[in-house]
Formats: sequence, structure tokens, C-alpha cells
Amino acid sequence: MAPFLRDGKSMLLAYDQGLEHGPSTDFNDRNINPAFIMEIAVKGGFNGVIFQKGVAERFYDGKVPMIVKVNGKSSLVKGDPISRQVCSVEYAASLGAKGIGYTIYLGSEHEAEMFAEFGRIQEEAHERNLPAIAWVYPRGAGVANDTSKEIVAYAARTALELGADAAKVKYTGDSESFSWAVKAGAGMKVFMSGGPKAPTDEAFLRQVKGAIDAGATGLAVGRNAWQNEDPVKLASYLKKVIFERQPVEAVIPAPTR
Amino acid sequence: MAPFLRDGKSMLLAYDQGLEHGPSTDFNDRNINPAFIMEIAVKGGFNGVIFQKGVAERFYDGKVPMIVKVNGKSSLVKGDPISRQVCSVEYAASLGAKGIGYTIYLGSEHEAEMFAEFGRIQEEAHERNLPAIAWVYPRGAGVANDTSKEIVAYAARTALELGADAAKVKYTGDSESFSWAVKAGAGMKVFMSGGPKAPTDEAFLRQVKGAIDAGATGLAVGRNAWQNEDPVKLASYLKKVIFERQPVEAVIPAPTR
Amino acid sequence: MAPFLRDGKSMLLAYDQGLEHGPSTDFNDRNINPAFIMEIAVKGGFNGVIFQKGVAERFYDGKVPMIVKVNGKSSLVKGDPISRQVCSVEYAASLGAKGIGYTIYLGSEHEAEMFAEFGRIQEEAHERNLPAIAWVYPRGAGVANDTSKEIVAYAARTALELGADAAKVKYTGDSESFSWAVKAGAGMKVFMSGGPKAPTDEAFLRQVKGAIDAGATGLAVGRNAWQNEDPVKLASYLKKVIFERQPVEAVIPAPTR
Amino acid sequence: MAPFLRDGKSMLLAYDQGLEHGPSTDFNDRNINPAFIMEIAVKGGFNGVIFQKGVAERFYDGKVPMIVKVNGKSSLVKGDPISRQVCSVEYAASLGAKGIGYTIYLGSEHEAEMFAEFGRIQEEAHERNLPAIAWVYPRGAGVANDTSKEIVAYAARTALELGADAAKVKYTGDSESFSWAVKAGAGMKVFMSGGPKAPTDEAFLRQVKGAIDAGATGLAVGRNAWQNEDPVKLASYLKKVIFERQPVEAVIPAPTR
Amino acid sequence: MAPFLRDGKSMLLAYDQGLEHGPSTDFNDRNINPAFIMEIAVKGGFNGVIFQKGVAERFYDGKVPMIVKVNGKSSLVKGDPISRQVCSVEYAASLGAKGIGYTIYLGSEHEAEMFAEFGRIQEEAHERNLPAIAWVYPRGAGVANDTSKEIVAYAARTALELGADAAKVKYTGDSESFSWAVKAGAGMKVFMSGGPKAPTDEAFLRQVKGAIDAGATGLAVGRNAWQNEDPVKLASYLKKVIFERQPVEAVIPAPTR
Repeated sequence: MAPFLRDGKSMLLAYDQGLEHGPSTDFNDRNINPAFIMEIAVKGGFNGVIFQKGVAERFYDGKVPMIVKVNGKSSLVKGDPISRQVCSVEYAASLGAKGIGYTIYLGSEHEAEMFAEFGRIQEEAHERNLPAIAWVYPRGAGVANDTSKEIVAYAARTALELGADAAKVKYTGDSESFSWAVKAGAGMKVFMSGGPKAPTDEAFLRQVKGAIDAGATGLAVGRNAWQNEDPVKLASYLKKVIFERQPVEAVIPAPTR
Repeated sequence: MAPFLRDGKSMLLAYDQGLEHGPSTDFNDRNINPAFIMEIAVKGGFNGVIFQKGVAERFYDGKVPMIVKVNGKSSLVKGDPISRQVCSVEYAASLGAKGIGYTIYLGSEHEAEMFAEFGRIQEEAHERNLPAIAWVYPRGAGVANDTSKEIVAYAARTALELGADAAKVKYTGDSESFSWAVKAGAGMKVFMSGGPKAPTDEAFLRQVKGAIDAGATGLAVGRNAWQNEDPVKLASYLKKVIFERQPVEAVIPAPTR
Repeated sequence: MAPFLRDGKSMLLAYDQGLEHGPSTDFNDRNINPAFIMEIAVKGGFNGVIFQKGVAERFYDGKVPMIVKVNGKSSLVKGDPISRQVCSVEYAASLGAKGIGYTIYLGSEHEAEMFAEFGRIQEEAHERNLPAIAWVYPRGAGVANDTSKEIVAYAARTALELGADAAKVKYTGDSESFSWAVKAGAGMKVFMSGGPKAPTDEAFLRQVKGAIDAGATGLAVGRNAWQNEDPVKLASYLKKVIFERQPVEAVIPAPTR
Repeated sequence: MAPFLRDGKSMLLAYDQGLEHGPSTDFNDRNINPAFIMEIAVKGGFNGVIFQKGVAERFYDGKVPMIVKVNGKSSLVKGDPISRQVCSVEYAASLGAKGIGYTIYLGSEHEAEMFAEFGRIQEEAHERNLPAIAWVYPRGAGVANDTSKEIVAYAARTALELGADAAKVKYTGDSESFSWAVKAGAGMKVFMSGGPKAPTDEAFLRQVKGAIDAGATGLAVGRNAWQNEDPVKLASYLKKVIFERQPVEAVIPAPTR
Repeated sequence: MAPFLRDGKSMLLAYDQGLEHGPSTDFNDRNINPAFIMEIAVKGGFNGVIFQKGVAERFYDGKVPMIVKVNGKSSLVKGDPISRQVCSVEYAASLGAKGIGYTIYLGSEHEAEMFAEFGRIQEEAHERNLPAIAWVYPRGAGVANDTSKEIVAYAARTALELGADAAKVKYTGDSESFSWAVKAGAGMKVFMSGGPKAPTDEAFLRQVKGAIDAGATGLAVGRNAWQNEDPVKLASYLKKVIFERQPVEAVIPAPTR
């Protein structure tokens, strides 16, 4: 994971929502354009960007390290989710990827297929000295609450057991319970998933602070960054929380809070 | 997509309906014959023809560039659609294809299989320097209206994210909403799908004009061309709209309107 | 298809019913023996025989060209039919096949799998300069009448679009409607499927005559030949209808009619 | 099949019941040990033994020719049966197999998968000059009585059509009806399956005699041999019936009857 | 199995519960850390450790021989279990594995897929001179009691028939019935599965003693070891039972009992 780390911490900019949620759910005239995302990534000092192959192929300019998500699905299919490989590791590498991302819907009735596919991809990635990053999202009849301490820890642990170099999991809501997920990762890098836009910058920063305090490596943020009125300013706040370990109160100017 | 473009715009002649709809739905004694289509393609000045492998193998004469559709299905199977690869990229290339077409039924319960298959085909096509063109047709329980602004934009965006060089999507009904789909494509070529025969040439031309005004690269037209009494005349109208950006009123002689 | 043609017409002897229907449905002590079929093929002057791999391996003697059917199923399985590849193209060729046969159940919920499999087989056959012959039998909830003009034409067209060199389809019942299927084939060879034993030789010959008048290349006949009391005599009648275009009345001696 | 024949007839010792039925159904302290089976095979003068790969790997000593069953299933799964390949042809050969066995559940809703798998295996076996032996057991909604004349003949014919060198099928109950199955095999070797332990040696020998009289090549016997109090004595009876064509009365000493 | 044996007996430390059960079910702050497990393995004198690939990759230090479990699933999916391959044999070997573990859910409606996958893995393992160890856990509608004498023997026998070098099965509850499972293994190494934490050390040791007396090779223990307050002490007890065949009474100091 070295290309994506600064002093062992990391702030990644995720932008696969065009496929996962559809452009009409999350995008406006500004952030529908991947060039805008590349711009934020550079100006905001992000440690990495996360793209699907098509966006990578057309818009990636090499200015920040890239993770290519190699599987994907739309939000239109009902039932237990399945997300299949749409990009080979070789192809991702040829686009300049320095990391390979894959989403596992833990608990889905199609879990076995994603486990098997990730298993192969992890090995191909390591063969090329690329880290394999697992997005682990619990779903299905056996998952009552996908942000509970127990379930988020299960997500992190699954990534560890399957050989991921890093996991992206949802935040549990408080630092103490999230630290159990970090422990379950047993030294593997754990990233908090940014999730939908928080009501205020402060609210979002408190989540991030909680994750960092729990031992998380950092954050993979999408909507909370590029839906923000001023993504570069938000990035500057985030960097203070993640890399300088500043308290939220110190980060946001009083009037803004 | 260069072989299929003139000044960045394009008019393609689609002829895979014999498989997709069956000959008895769309064809008459004239257009059931693929030789007639090749003739229209040349006389009408189309920038490309779209065939399944069998028609390509028997009737393609190299006079206009060809896209081979490499998957297909009949209209007789009920339930959520699945269309599987029936032609290898290598075979399509050996038939003279300058582009590879593939249909994705976005939202179908079989979406994952088509995503994975297109993912592989896109890479094989690019390896041979052939563009991959995605027909993206939303279907299934999660799709209430497959020509809504939101859904058509989702279709275009899916093609972009999966690495297509061009997308063929349905028209939304008006230029403004279609421009959102073009934006979702983020620079990828977006083609309006011709759809079933419009009541009049004028009605059809207004749709095309709307798409072009919205930023579409052009049109992939089938039934509206080869079911037309005078396909070559229609093609001449279309060219004025697509390449010369003429208003519909200027294109069709008054008495015809 | 040249090895199977005489003056552009053809009469093929089909014998895969032992697998498709079971020996107890169609066979008696005489025709249960494949050696008897080879004998008829030679004496009757057939242009080809059609066997599954096992019969080909044990009984084929090279005296008439052979098509090996490379997929098959029993009649004991309920639900929408699926017939999978049981013989590789390479193996069929090693047994002496000059053509590769494959059955597609158009409209079956398993259609996609057969389309994909035929797609691969057609390419492998062409690589070895062997024709691919598609048996196309419409089935499933979307098929009300599998001998209607529309459906039979769809069957023929499917074979064309998927790259078959010839199609074997059911007869529609009259020459005029069958000519629409031949047109849908657009020059591809169309064979009438013999079907179950007709009540009289005359009745059967009238069907064949109708197909030939409609432009069919010929006939693939099984039960109507080898269940006939005198298969060689029937073959002589058929040859007059198919190759000499004689009217049925001229073919059958009056007392027999 | 030459390694397994003596004067064109054969007596095989089957021992895959540990997997197919489970040890607690069929085994006792004596016959649970594969070494005991190898011992019977030699002392009883059997023409072959039939093992799964694991038993072959640990217990096969080369003293009689071996068929390795390359697919298998337990008896614990409900619904239509499916038995998948668990041993490659190459591996079976490396263990010393002189024949490859495969079970097809004809009529099962999974029939297509087994047909396809057997099709590949038959070709791989022939490439290594090994015979392919098909166990064909009819099952499923379309099979009312799996020992009827019609169904057993269908089983034998299926093996022939798919290229098997021999078929193992159930006995129909009488010699006349079984002769129809042998005819359906059209020269392919047909083996009667021993089935569950018959009430007396005489009853079992009468079945075998009926099969041999019907033209069967022989018998693949399991439980009736190794569950017998004196398997070697039973084998001596069987040899008289199979190879010397003696009547059952002449074979069994009067007091025993 | 030689690397995992001492005088033909064995005590293995299993640690795949993080994936199979989730960290929140079985782990505490101490045993959630794989480094703690490696420490126990060494100090306790275990003959082997059992890890999933990810734990192997990060924590394995080569001090005791390792089995890598190459399939896995979470406990969150409902219905009949399926566990698919997530690690190639080649990759496991590259991590230092001296044995390959695979779980088969015997009786599950997905049994066929696991049988087939294990069949391939067993051959790949043997090609590299690695033993294949089968965890066989009966499940599904056909399994009323997964610790009955009959079912546990079926589990052991399945491993034997499919070519496993060792089986890990549940204990039946008493030594006599477990000896039937050992017999069903016919010389293959049979390991008792430790199962959930027993109420007392003595209760657990009595189970192990029963298995050893029945002829088991040893024990694969997880929770009963690393959930124990003093795992090293427990290991010392186990070694006396397994390797020295001491009675339980002699092993545990009186006050502790």
C-alpha cells in the first residue's frame, strides 16, 4: 500500500458512484465530469484516486496514484447483490493502476462467487506487486445492521483472511466500536468508507476523527468530497485530522462550525 | 471510433433485428435481404453498418466500415433478458469488423454476466485497436421507464465506466434531458438508437435533431431507414441534420411535411 | 455445404433419434441397428448421414458424407429444453465428419447457453473448413405454434444470423408460407425436417415437394425413411421430387397412391 | 474393453458404494476394508475392479485391471441427482486405470451437465486408448420405472450414442426384455448392474443368467459379491454362468438351492 | 502427512474461525491477533497450524508446519452451505504451506461443486507432493444429526474415496462409534475436530482420549485451545493424551479436576 500512504496514513478519493449509484443520484453538472475529480485529487492533496476502468482510460493523468476498481454493478438489480469482474488485473495495470480494488458483498447469497473471484484477483495483483484492496459491504438476510460493531469487524476480518492489503468498511458510528474492526484487521490497513454526504463538514470530520483514533489508516471519501461546495477546503480539514491528528475543533474555523 | 466518424459525427445503419425481433416482425420482401441493406448503406452514405456475424460473413462487401454485434438473443424468451457472446472478437475482426458491438441489459437480473462478458470483450477489442460499442438497454424490476432522463443517463454512464468507446442509448424525448445523458458520457461518443418506425419522417428527424443538439455523436438507425419507402432520401435528410446541423424545417421539402 | 449437395440440392438421412427420443419410441428390430441405416444411406443414394459421435465411431464407413451432431439430450427431462455439446469439433472431424450439426432450442429459457455454444462451435468448424448446420427448434412459453410461418422463418433467420451454413427447420404446412422461411435464410441452405412418420408416402412427398418449391435445399429425413417398409423405394421417390422437380403424381405409381 | 474381457465376456467387481451409499448402509467390519475387496478380486478371478480415486490410490495393487470411476456423489443430497467429475482422466491413468467410469443420471434435470462432462471425458479417455464406461441410471420426473424394458434400453442406447465403450445398466427382470437393451447398444458391451443383495445366490444367478442369455457382456457386481458370506464361492458360480453358459441348476449344488 | 506427524500422531492448531464464524463470535482482545496463535503453536508444541491465505501471508513465520485452508465462507449466508476456492494450491505453496485444506459440506445441495473443486485441488496438491486434507461437515436436508455414528463415518469415507490424505470430522460422542469412522477411513488419517469450547478441560480431554482410543491420528483444535485461559497448559495435557496415551485422570492434576 506504500504508494497510497503518507506517514502510514492515507486519504483516498473514490469516484465509482457513476456506475454503482447512477449519475442522476449523486452527480451534478460539475462532478459528473471526471476531469473535475482529477483536479480535486491534485489540488486537495489526496493520496490516491479510485476509478472504474473506463474513467481511468479516459481521464487518468498520473498525477496521483490510482486504484482501479475491477468489479462493479448497477443499483437497478434487485435481490442479493453480485458484482463481477469487469476489468482484468493486467488491463488495470496497463492503465497505470498502483492498486486493485474489488467489492465483496459479504453475506449475499452470491458471496461464494465474489470470494472465489477476489481470491484469484488477489493472487494476480500480488504477482504484479500491486496491493489488493477489498471493499467489504455486508448484505443479505443474515445482516440485520451493516454498521454494527460485530458486522463491521466481520467485514474487516474477511478482508484480512482473504489476503487483502487493505479493507474499506463502513464506520460503526463511534471510535471505540470501530477499534474492534481495526483489531480484527490485525495490522491490515483499514479505511473508513465516506458514505453519503453528511449534514455538515463538522459531522463528517468527527466520524473521520473517530476512525483515525480507532487506528484506521484513513478514509476513502467520495460524495462528502466532490459534493462539497469547496472540496479542496474540506480536503485541507481532512488532512489535519488524518495526518496531524488535530481535534475537529482545531480544524474548522469557529464561524464555520 | 475514427473509422465511423465524419467531422466527429456519425450515421450508422443497424441491421440485427432479424435475430433480435425476428424477420416476421420487422421485415418485408425487400428488407429481409441483407444485400438490400448493404446497398442502402452505400447509396445513403452511412458511416457504418451493424451486422451479426452470419450476415457479415455472407453479405459484407467492405464498402462501408462494419461493426459486428458479438452477442444476441431472440425475442421469444420471457423474463429478464440475457444476451450472450456468439462471436469472438477475433472472428469479428477476421470478417472485417472495424468495431465490436455488445448489448448490455442494465438492471436485468443477468446484468452481472453481461458486465463481465463485456469487460473481457472490451479488452480484447482494444488489444486489436478496435473500438467497443455498448448498446445499453435498461430492463427489469428496477426500471420503471427506460426513456426517462435518469435512466438514459445511467445507460450512457455505464458504458463510460465499463470502458466503451461509444454507447447506443434510447432517446429521452427531448433535447434538454438527453444532454444529461451526453454529459454522463463525459466525452464518450453517444449514439441515439433509432427505435421503431416513427409516424413521419419529420417526427423522426426532430428526434435526431434533438439528440444532435444535445451533443450526441449521431444515430444508429435501423427500422426508420430500411422500413422507409425511400431509405436513400431519408438518409439525405439525416445527413443534413447530423453533419450540417440544419433545422428540420430546412431539410424536408414543405409539401412532404 | 458442397460435400452434401448434388446440383445444389440435398437429401440427408438423419439418425439421432436413439438419443433424442429413445430407442423404444422410434425403433424396431431392423432400424435399431445403425448398420441398417448406413446400408439405406448408400442404397438410397442419400447425400449425407447424420449421426451422434458414438454411432459415427462404430458404424460410419465413409461411403456417404457424414454430419456429426455435436450436442444432444434425452426426451426424459421436463421443462424448457437444453442440449449441450457432447462432442468436440476436433473429435467429430477425426471421425470423418464433413459437417457439424448442432440443435438450438430457440425461445427456451436456456437459449442463451445454446447460442453461446453454437457461436463457438461455428467458429471452430469454419476454422477446419467444415460447415456448421443448425437444427433450430422453437420452444418455450413464447412459442405458441412451432410450425407457424412466423416462427419457422424466425428459426431459419436465427441460423443465418448466427453464421450457420445451413438450417434444418420444421415444415410450415404449405409451400407459400415456407418460402418466407427460405427468404429469411437469405441464401443460406434451408432443409426441411422430416418429422414423424407421415400417414402415406404421398402425404410425405407432398410436404417435401412444397418445401422444394419454396426454395428449400432439401430434406433431412429420419423416421419417414427408416420406418418405411421400403426405405430405398421411398428414397427413389424423394430424389425425383428433390433433384428432378417432378410432381408427386408423376413420382408415385397410381396403384400405390 | 479388451483388458476387461475373457472370451468376450466379463465379470467386474464394483466398490464405489462407500461414496455413493455411505459406509453405514452397505458395509460391515470386513468389507469396509478395501484390501478385502482387492483380495476377493484376485481370488474370485474377477476381470476388473472398480474404484474411486482415493481407494485406487491407497489399495490398488495391479493384480487385476482397474476402472476408476471419475465422478461421484453422496446419497445425502435430495432432488434430481448430479454427479460431477472428481478425478481427471490423466490422474486415473496415473493410478493405473485401464478404463474410465462415469455415471450419467439420464432424465435428471442436471442431465445436460453430465452429458457434456462425459462427452469431454470420453474423448480424453480415447486419446489415451482407455475405454469409457458409462453407468446410465435413469432418474427424474420423466422416469416412472427405472427397470422397464423401454427405460433400460434408453439407458443403453444413450451410452452408445455418446460414444461409450460399455454401459452398465440395471436388469429389466427378464431375459427377453433385457435383450432389447442389448440390441439398443448395437454391439457396445452391455453390463448388468448387480444391484442390492438378492435374497439367495440362486435368485441372483438367475438374473445374471438372464442377462447373459440376452447377450450381455457380463456383470458389474458389488454388494451381491462382497456382502456374500463366501464371495469367492459366489464368484465361482458366476464364472460358470457367464463364461461357460451353464444353467443355474448345474452351477449351484443341490443342497444349497 | 509426514510433516504434521510425531510417531504417527498429531495435534494441529486451527485458526480459520475469523472467516468462518466472524471475529465477534469467537475472539477476544488476545486471540483476535494471529501473532498470539503463532506463539501458542510454538510454545504448545503443536504439529501444525491451519490458516487462511491472508493470515498465512502476514503472520506465518515457519516455526511449525502450516496447512493453508484454500476455501472459505462466512457464517452470514443462509441456506445450504457452499464454500469455494479462494486460494490456489500454487499460492498456498508459495506461502510455505506443507498441506492443503479444503472444506466439503457433504449433503449440501452444492455438494457437487465442492466435490469437483476438491477433486482438482487434490490432484494439484499431490503433483506438488503436498497432502490434501478434507474437512468434511455433513449438512442439508438429508442430514438429521451431524454427529451420529453413521454420518461421521460417511464423512470420513467421503474423504477417503475422494483421495484425501487426512480427514477432519466431528466427534461422535463416544469412542466405540468413532472407531467406525476411523475404520471407514481405511487407513487414511482421521482427525477429530475440536468444536466449540467444552465446559471444562477434563470434558474436552475425555473427547480427545475417546478419539485417540478409537484410532484417530489426532486432533485439530481451535477454540478449545486459544479460548482457554492457559493454552500452553492445555496443550501439555493434550500431548499426554495423544502421544503418550495417558488416561485423562493421569493428565490433569487432581485439584484442577
